[in-house]
Amino acid sequence: DFELALDEVKPAFGQHSDDFEKCIPFGIQSFSEEFKHTVGSCKSILEQVRSSSHTPIMSLLLHGSKGCGKTALSAFLAQGSDYPFVRRIGSDKYVGYSEQAKISAIAKIFEDAYKSDLSCIVLDDIERLVDYVRVGPRFSTPVLQALFALLKRPPPKENSRLLVIGTATDAQFLEDVELLHAFNVALAIPELSNPSEYKAVLEPLPGFTPPAVQEISAGLSGQRVGIKTLLLVAEMAVQRENPVQIGAFKIHRDSTDTLGAAPP
Amino acid sequence: DFELALDEVKPAFGQHSDDFEKCIPFGIQSFSEEFKHTVGSCKSILEQVRSSSHTPIMSLLLHGSKGCGKTALSAFLAQGSDYPFVRRIGSDKYVGYSEQAKISAIAKIFEDAYKSDLSCIVLDDIERLVDYVRVGPRFSTPVLQALFALLKRPPPKENSRLLVIGTATDAQFLEDVELLHAFNVALAIPELSNPSEYKAVLEPLPGFTPPAVQEISAGLSGQRVGIKTLLLVAEMAVQRENPVQIGAFKIHRDSTDTLGAAPP
Amino acid sequence: DFELALDEVKPAFGQHSDDFEKCIPFGIQSFSEEFKHTVGSCKSILEQVRSSSHTPIMSLLLHGSKGCGKTALSAFLAQGSDYPFVRRIGSDKYVGYSEQAKISAIAKIFEDAYKSDLSCIVLDDIERLVDYVRVGPRFSTPVLQALFALLKRPPPKENSRLLVIGTATDAQFLEDVELLHAFNVALAIPELSNPSEYKAVLEPLPGFTPPAVQEISAGLSGQRVGIKTLLLVAEMAVQRENPVQIGAFKIHRDSTDTLGAAPP
Amino acid sequence: DFELALDEVKPAFGQHSDDFEKCIPFGIQSFSEEFKHTVGSCKSILEQVRSSSHTPIMSLLLHGSKGCGKTALSAFLAQGSDYPFVRRIGSDKYVGYSEQAKISAIAKIFEDAYKSDLSCIVLDDIERLVDYVRVGPRFSTPVLQALFALLKRPPPKENSRLLVIGTATDAQFLEDVELLHAFNVALAIPELSNPSEYKAVLEPLPGFTPPAVQEISAGLSGQRVGIKTLLLVAEMAVQRENPVQIGAFKIHRDSTDTLGAAPP
Amino acid sequence: DFELALDEVKPAFGQHSDDFEKCIPFGIQSFSEEFKHTVGSCKSILEQVRSSSHTPIMSLLLHGSKGCGKTALSAFLAQGSDYPFVRRIGSDKYVGYSEQAKISAIAKIFEDAYKSDLSCIVLDDIERLVDYVRVGPRFSTPVLQALFALLKRPPPKENSRLLVIGTATDAQFLEDVELLHAFNVALAIPELSNPSEYKAVLEPLPGFTPPAVQEISAGLSGQRVGIKTLLLVAEMAVQRENPVQIGAFKIHRDSTDTLGAAPP
Amino acid sequence: DFELALDEVKPAFGQHSDDFEKCIPFGIQSFSEEFKHTVGSCKSILEQVRSSSHTPIMSLLLHGSKGCGKTALSAFLAQGSDYPFVRRIGSDKYVGYSEQAKISAIAKIFEDAYKSDLSCIVLDDIERLVDYVRVGPRFSTPVLQALFALLKRPPPKENSRLLVIGTATDAQFLEDVELLHAFNVALAIPELSNPSEYKAVLEPLPGFTPPAVQEISAGLSGQRVGIKTLLLVAEMAVQRENPVQIGAFKIHRDSTDTLGAAPP
Ligand SMILES: Nc1ncnc2c1ncn2[C@@H]1O[C@H](COP(=O)(O)OP(=O)(O)OP(=O)(O)O)[C@@H](O)[C@H]1O
Ligand SMILES: Nc1ncnc2c1ncn2[C@@H]1O[C@H](COP(=O)(O)OP(=O)(O)OP(=O)(O)O)[C@@H](O)[C@H]1O
Ligand SMILES: Nc1ncnc2c1ncn2[C@@H]1O[C@H](COP(=O)(O)OP(=O)(O)OP(=O)(O)O)[C@@H](O)[C@H]1O
Ligand SMILES: Nc1ncnc2c1ncn2[C@@H]1O[C@H](COP(=O)(O)OP(=O)(O)OP(=O)(O)O)[C@@H](O)[C@H]1O
Ligand SMILES: Nc1ncnc2c1ncn2[C@@H]1O[C@H](COP(=O)(O)OP(=O)(O)OP(=O)(O)O)[C@@H](O)[C@H]1O
Ligand SMILES: Nc1ncnc2c1ncn2[C@@H]1O[C@H](COP(=O)(O)OP(=O)(O)OP(=O)(O)O)[C@@H](O)[C@H]1O
Ligand SMILES: [Mg+2]
Ligand SMILES: [Mg+2]
Ligand SMILES: [Mg+2]
Ligand SMILES: [Mg+2]
Ligand SMILES: [Mg+2]
Ligand SMILES: [Mg+2]
Repeated sequence: DFELALDEVKPAFGQHSDDFEKCIPFGIQSFSEEFKHTVGSCKSILEQVRSSSHTPIMSLLLHGSKGCGKTALSAFLAQGSDYPFVRRIGSDKYVGYSEQAKISAIAKIFEDAYKSDLSCIVLDDIERLVDYVRVGPRFSTPVLQALFALLKRPPPKENSRLLVIGTATDAQFLEDVELLHAFNVALAIPELSNPSEYKAVLEPLPGFTPPAVQEISAGLSGQRVGIKTLLLVAEMAVQRENPVQIGAFKIHRDSTDTLGAAPP
Repeated sequence: DFELALDEVKPAFGQHSDDFEKCIPFGIQSFSEEFKHTVGSCKSILEQVRSSSHTPIMSLLLHGSKGCGKTALSAFLAQGSDYPFVRRIGSDKYVGYSEQAKISAIAKIFEDAYKSDLSCIVLDDIERLVDYVRVGPRFSTPVLQALFALLKRPPPKENSRLLVIGTATDAQFLEDVELLHAFNVALAIPELSNPSEYKAVLEPLPGFTPPAVQEISAGLSGQRVGIKTLLLVAEMAVQRENPVQIGAFKIHRDSTDTLGAAPP
Repeated sequence: DFELALDEVKPAFGQHSDDFEKCIPFGIQSFSEEFKHTVGSCKSILEQVRSSSHTPIMSLLLHGSKGCGKTALSAFLAQGSDYPFVRRIGSDKYVGYSEQAKISAIAKIFEDAYKSDLSCIVLDDIERLVDYVRVGPRFSTPVLQALFALLKRPPPKENSRLLVIGTATDAQFLEDVELLHAFNVALAIPELSNPSEYKAVLEPLPGFTPPAVQEISAGLSGQRVGIKTLLLVAEMAVQRENPVQIGAFKIHRDSTDTLGAAPP
Repeated sequence: DFELALDEVKPAFGQHSDDFEKCIPFGIQSFSEEFKHTVGSCKSILEQVRSSSHTPIMSLLLHGSKGCGKTALSAFLAQGSDYPFVRRIGSDKYVGYSEQAKISAIAKIFEDAYKSDLSCIVLDDIERLVDYVRVGPRFSTPVLQALFALLKRPPPKENSRLLVIGTATDAQFLEDVELLHAFNVALAIPELSNPSEYKAVLEPLPGFTPPAVQEISAGLSGQRVGIKTLLLVAEMAVQRENPVQIGAFKIHRDSTDTLGAAPP
Repeated sequence: DFELALDEVKPAFGQHSDDFEKCIPFGIQSFSEEFKHTVGSCKSILEQVRSSSHTPIMSLLLHGSKGCGKTALSAFLAQGSDYPFVRRIGSDKYVGYSEQAKISAIAKIFEDAYKSDLSCIVLDDIERLVDYVRVGPRFSTPVLQALFALLKRPPPKENSRLLVIGTATDAQFLEDVELLHAFNVALAIPELSNPSEYKAVLEPLPGFTPPAVQEISAGLSGQRVGIKTLLLVAEMAVQRENPVQIGAFKIHRDSTDTLGAAPP
Repeated sequence: DFELALDEVKPAFGQHSDDFEKCIPFGIQSFSEEFKHTVGSCKSILEQVRSSSHTPIMSLLLHGSKGCGKTALSAFLAQGSDYPFVRRIGSDKYVGYSEQAKISAIAKIFEDAYKSDLSCIVLDDIERLVDYVRVGPRFSTPVLQALFALLKRPPPKENSRLLVIGTATDAQFLEDVELLHAFNVALAIPELSNPSEYKAVLEPLPGFTPPAVQEISAGLSGQRVGIKTLLLVAEMAVQRENPVQIGAFKIHRDSTDTLGAAPP
C-alpha cells in the first residue's frame, strides 16, 4: 500500500520522484526493532494528516547521527506516502543561491503545496539549509525565520493539509535556536550496534555473501556505526576482493586522532 | 455583544476577519479562573480605549509559554472587539521580506489604522516579527526600533484611538531589549494543570467522549501543559482510536533528553 | 510671556506647533519644588541663548526615568520659547528610514535653523534616534556621529544662535558613548513620590474629584512613580468608575516578576 | 609676523580663513607657562617645515582633555602660519557623508595641498573623523587607514612641503590603533588650574570686571578645568548679572553622579 | 598504467593537464614506507570509484603540515588517474573573485564533471578556498556551505561517478567546521625525518651529487621537515656552490623567535 | 653592478623608478655589521632568483620596528636589482580604494610581472595593505587571501621568475594570520644602538659636522632607536642651530606616558 501516486500535480512529477529514489538506492532495510518502531510512528503520522481535519499542518523531525539514514528514511516516507504532492527541499539544490533566493525557492514549494489537498514536504538536512557552522555558531537568520513561519502556517485553502518532515543531525543546535519545538513531533533514528543488525543491512545487497558479511561484522566488532559508514566499509572490503583487508582504510570516526593511514 | 462589525473600512474586510478565524478554529474555552480573569482584564481595556478620550494609544502585551493560546486569545479579542478597524500582523505574512519591506508593510497597517476612529492591531509573535534567535542573541534592530516608535505614536487624527495587542513567549527577551515597558499593560496567559482544566477544553470538541477525555487526562497525570500540546496529544490518541496508545508518541517537551521514539 | 510667535519661518508654522501640542495634552503641572527648580534653570538657558552673543550654540539635556515627562517638558519649553524657529526631531517621524535618510532629515532641520536668528531644536528620545538597544549594546554609529557634529557646530550666519534640547532616559548609555559631555548642561527630571505631588497632577484634570484622587493616592502608597504611570493608573481607575478596583490591573513596573494578571 | 597670506591658492581663500576664525572667537590667551611652552614648540615646527628640505612631510599631534583648546590652538597655528595653503578638516563638514565620500573629500584636500609649495592641514578632532565610539570600540577602519597613508605620503612635487596638525582627546585610543606613532611629534595642551590662569583668560574678555573674575575664581576654587568649561561658567554667571548664582547650574564634569539640577 | 588520457572532454584538455604538471615539477619521489602506503591507499580508491557502481560520489582528504607535498600528490593522482575528466580547483585561480563568483566557478566545474562518466576534482588548499584565517577564526560561510553540498551530491547522470580529492593543512579547522566528516576517507601525508628520506628526494634531482646531499643531510641533522623546506634549503645551498653555507639563511620554521638573519 | 636597467617593460619606467628613489632620499648607509649581513643575504636571494630555474617564485620578508628602514631597504634592493621589471605596491597608492579595487590593482601588477622574465615586486608595509588595526584585531580578509594566493602562484610563463619582497612591522600579526610562513625567507632589520652606528648614518649627510653628530649622540646616550627617529631628532637639532636644544621636543617613543611637551 505504500506506493506512489502523484497524479494531482502532474508537471513536476517525474523529476521529483527521481530525486527521492536517488536517496534510497538500496531501499530501506528494517535493521532493528527500534528502527522498526520509528518507521511505524512515522506511518501513523502520515495516516493522521491524511484523515484528521484537525491538523491542517503537522511537522515531524527525524534526527540522528551523521549517516544514520535520515535522508533515506524521509525519502522513503515521502515517496511511499501516496500524497498527491511530495517534494524534497535540500541544500544541494541551492548551491550559490543568495539567502533571499533560497528563501523564495523554499517558500515557492510551500505555496505549491498549499494548492494540493494533501502534501508532504521534506526539509532535508536543516543545518545545511540554514547554513549552520558550529564555529561561532553561524547560521542564516533569515532562512531560519522563514522556516519558523512556514512550519506554523496552515494551508490557506479549506480542508487542505500539509506534513513537513525535517531531518537534522545536531538536535542541540535546533534546540538552541528553538527550532526543535517548532516541530510537533521529534523522532530519533538509531545507529547499528551488533552483527545481526549489520547482517540485516548487508545480506540483501548484491555481492555480499554470508562469509563476507561475517568478516565485515568481525572487523567492526560490535561498535555503534551509522548505516552510511557500514555500507562504505563493506563496499571497500568487497572491492579489494579480500574482506580481510578491511582495516587498511581507517575511516575517520572520532575526530583528528584517528586520522591518517594505518601502516600495513 | 462580542460580535464583529467591520463596516468603516470595507474593502479589506473579508480577508482579515478570515485570518482571525483561522487562529481560533476551536473557539475559545474558558478553562480556568485565572484564564477567565485575564480575558476580563483584556475586555476592560478594549472598553477603555473605546470610551476614554485620554488614551488615544494603548498597548497590551499577552505573554506565556509556547502554545498556551496567545495567538488564539489575541484573535478572539480583536475579532470580538466591534472596532471598525482590526488587523493582525504576523511573521507568516512576511516570509522572505527584507527588513525594510517588512517595516514598510507594518507601518502601512498603522497608517491605515490612523484613518479609522477606533482600531485594534495585533502584533502576533513579536519574537518572530523582530527575527529573534536566542543564540547570540540576534534580532532585527530596525524592526524593533519601528515597533518602539509605533507603540508610542498616537494617531494624528483628533479623537482617533488605537489599541495594540502584542503576543510574545519570551518576556525576558522583551525586558532585555526594553520593549516590555513600551507596552502599557502586560498580562500572562496560564497553562493547563489539572484534569478539570483539560476537560473544559476537550469535552466541547467533536469526537471526544467523556471516557476518552478521562483517559487522556490520566495519561497527562496533571502536568502543566500548553493548550496546543493538549490538543495535539488528544487528537493523536483519538486518531489511533484507542486512547491507551497515547504514550506511543513522545511529544517533546523539555529539550533533547526526551527526544526519540519510546520503544514499544 | 511664554507664548508662541513663530513669524520668521512661516510656512512650516502650523504643523510644527501642533506637534508640540500633541506632547502636552494635559499642560504642564509644577508638581514639586525640584521640578519647579529644573524648569527655572531651563528658562534661564533659553534667556541666555536669546541675549548673549557669546554662546552661538548651546545644548541642554533633560534626562530621567521612563515616563517622567521629558518629552512634555521639552515641548513646553520649545513652544513657550518665543524663538522664531522651533522644531521637534523624534524617532516617530523616521519609521523605516535608512540611517542615511534619517541623518539627512535631521541635518536638514539644523540647516533650516541656521537660517533663523534664534532657533530651538528638540532631539526627543535620543536613544531611539540612535537606534539604541541595551542588548549588545547596539546603536547607529553614523547617527550618533552626526549628533556629535551637529551639537558642536555653531550656526554659520553671523549673530545667529541655536539651542538644542535633548531628552534621554539612559544617562549611563550617553555617558558610555561620550554623548553626555557633548551637551553643555544636563538636568534631571524627578519622579513623583508623595500624595501631595500626585494631587498636584491629578486635581486639575477633568473627572478627578478629590475623593477619587484620594483613593488613587492611597493605592499608590507613596511609591516613586513617573507621571505617565500615574496618569494611566488614574485613568483606568476612573474608567471603571470605582476607584477601589485600581489593583485589578497590575501595571508592570519592575520587570518580569510583576507580570501577569493578579487573580481577583 | 603671524599673519595670514593665502595668495597662492586664491579661489578658496575667503571661506577657509573664515573657518579658522570661527574657532578662535576670543583669540588665544597665553594662560600659563606650560601653555606658552607648547605654543613655542609648535611655532618651531612650523619654522622647520618652512626652511628644511629634509622634512617634506611632518606631522604634529595636539592632544588634551575635552574643551582644553585644541581646536582653537590648531586654528591659531594654521591661520598664523603664513603658509600659502592652509585647510581645516573637521567632522562637522562631513555630516551624513558615507565613509568613501569622506575619504575622498579628505584625500582631495591633500591632493590640493601637494600642488602648493608649503601647506598646513589641520585634522581636527581625529576621534570624530574616524567615527570613534568608546563602546566596542567602534571606528571607521577605512578612514583610519586613509589617515595612516596620508600622514606618511610626502608631496610628490619636488621641494614641496606639508605639515599636518592633528587634534585628539583620547590619546590612549590613538595609541591603541597605532595612530599616535604615525605622528612625528605629540604635544599636550594643559588645563587651567589656578586663579591667575583663570584671570589670564577672563580679564581680556568684554564684560568681565576684575571683581566678577574674582568671584568666578572663588566659585571654581582652583579645580582643574578646561578653558571651554571656564568660559561657559563665566558667561552664565555674567548673564545672570549676579556672579554669586554661579552654583545654580551644575555643569556636569565627572559623569553621571553630578547630573541633575541642584535644589535651590 | 598511470598515464593521462583525457579524451572525453577535449576542449579544456591542454590547459588543465598543464596546471597539474606545474604542481609536480620534480615528479613524485616515494621517500618513505609511510608515504608509499598513503599513495597505495589513494590508488585503491581511484580504482574503486572506477569500478564500483555503488559509490557514485567518493571523497578523499589529503592532509599534512605546510609544504609536505599535498598539492603535488593530489596533482599526481589526478593526472595519473586515467579518468576522462580531471580538474584542479585552487584559490590562485580566484584572486579577487567575490564569494558568489567563486562559488559559481566551483559549481560550474562540478556541473562539467557530472557530464562525464568518470571524473576527479581536486579541491586544493581548502583553507584558502574558504578564505580561512586562524584569527577570529574567519572563513567564508557561503563557500563552505557550497563545498558541503558539492561533496554530498552524486552526479545526476545514471552510472556517472565522481571522486573529489581535497587537500588541507589544518585538520583541526576542518573538524571544527565539520567539513572533515564530509569526506569519506582522510589520509595523512608524512614529513621527512631522516637522512635516507632526504636522500630519496634529493639524489634524483639534477645538480645534487651524493656529497652535497650528505652535507645538506648533516645540516638538517634528522629534524622533521616538509619536502618544500628540504627542497628550498637544498637549492640555496647548491646556488651558493658551497653546501657548508647552508646555515646562512635561517629558514623560519617555528614562529617568531627564529626570525632574523643569523650573524655570520 | 647594482644599477637600474628597466628596459623590458618600458612605458611605466620613469614613474616607478622615481617612486623607489623617493623612499631612499639619503641613500643607504651600512650602519652596523648586523645590517650589512642582512643586506648580503638579500643580495644572495636576488642572485638565486636570477640564476636558478628551480625557484620560479621566491618570497622574502623584511621586518623590524617602526622606522627601522624597511621601506628604504626594499626600495634599494628593487632599484639595484637589475631586474627588467620592478614595482612597489604601497598603501599610499590605494587611498580610498575599495577592497575589490585594491585587490585588482595588486593582481594587475603581478599579471604584468608574469610577462617579464625576471621581476621583483615590493609589498611595502603589509599591515597597511591589509588594513590591519591592532584593536579587534581588524584586517581585510579578501586582501589577505589575495596575498596568500599571489605569494604562492608561480609565473605561468616557462622560465619566468618572480621575487616578492614584503615589509612589515608586526611579525606577530603575520604569524597569527599565518602569512609569515607564506614567505620563503624572513629577515630582521636591526635598530641602531651605539654612537658609532649613529655616526655612520649622520656624518655622510649634508650639514652634520662631527661636533654636531657628537652632541646628538650624547643626547641619545646609546638607546636603541630606529633610523627614522634618529634622522628626525638630528634634523630638529640642526634646524635650531644649537644641538643642545635637542631635548626640547620629546619625540614620543614608548606610548602615552612620554606624551606631552617637556616644561622648559
Ligand atoms: N534503512 C536503510 N536500509 C538500507 N540502506 C539505508 C538505510 N538507511 C540509509 N541507507 C543508505 O545509507 C546511506 C546513508 O543514508 P542517508 O544519506 O540517508 O543518511 P543521513 O543520515 O541522511 O546522512 P547525513 O548525516 O550525511 O545526511 C545511503 O546510501 C542510504 O541509501
Ligand atoms: N482557550 C482556548 N480554547 C480552545 N482552544 C484554544 C484556546 N486557546 C488556544 N486554543 C487552540 O490551541 C491551539 C494553539 O493556540 P495558539 O496558536 O493561539 O497558541 P500560541 O500561544 O499562540 O502558540 P505559539 O507559542 O506557538 O505561538 C490553537 O489551535 C488554538 O485554536
Ligand atoms: N509636568 C506635567 N504635568 C502634567 N502632565 C505631564 C507633565 N509631564 C508629563 N505629563 C504627561 O505625562 C505623560 C508622559 O509624559 P512624557 O511622554 O513627556 O514622558 P517621557 O519622559 O517623555 O516618557 P518616555 O520615557 O516614554 O519618553 C504625557 O501624557 C504628558 O502629557
Ligand atoms: N588659549 C585660549 N585663549 C582664549 N580662548 C581659548 C583658548 N583656547 C580655547 N579657547 C576658547 O575656548 C573654547 C573651547 O576651545 P576649543 O573648542 O578649541 O577646545 P577643544 O579642546 O577643541 O574642545 P573639544 O574637546 O570639545 O574639541 C573656544 O570657544 C575657544 O575659542
Ligand atoms: N613526493 C615528492 N617528491 C618530490 N617532490 C615533491 C614531492 N612532494 C612534493 N614535492 C615538491 O615539493 C614542493 C612542495 O610541495 P607542495 O606544494 O605539493 O606541498 P604542499 O603540502 O601543497 O604545500 P602547502 O602547504 O604550501 O600547500 C613542490 O615543489 C613539489 O613539487
Ligand atoms: N640604511 C639607511 N641609511 C640611510 N638612511 C636610511 C637607511 N634606512 C632608512 N633610511 C632613511 O630613514 C627614513 C626611514 O626609513 P623607512 O621609511 O624606510 O623606514 P620604515 O621601517 O619603512 O618605516 P615605517 O615603519 O614607518 O614604515 C627614511 O627617510 C629613509 O630614507
Ligand atoms: Mg542526509
Ligand atoms: Mg502564537
Ligand atoms: Mg519621551
Ligand atoms: Mg575641538
Ligand atoms: Mg599546497
Ligand atoms: Mg615603511
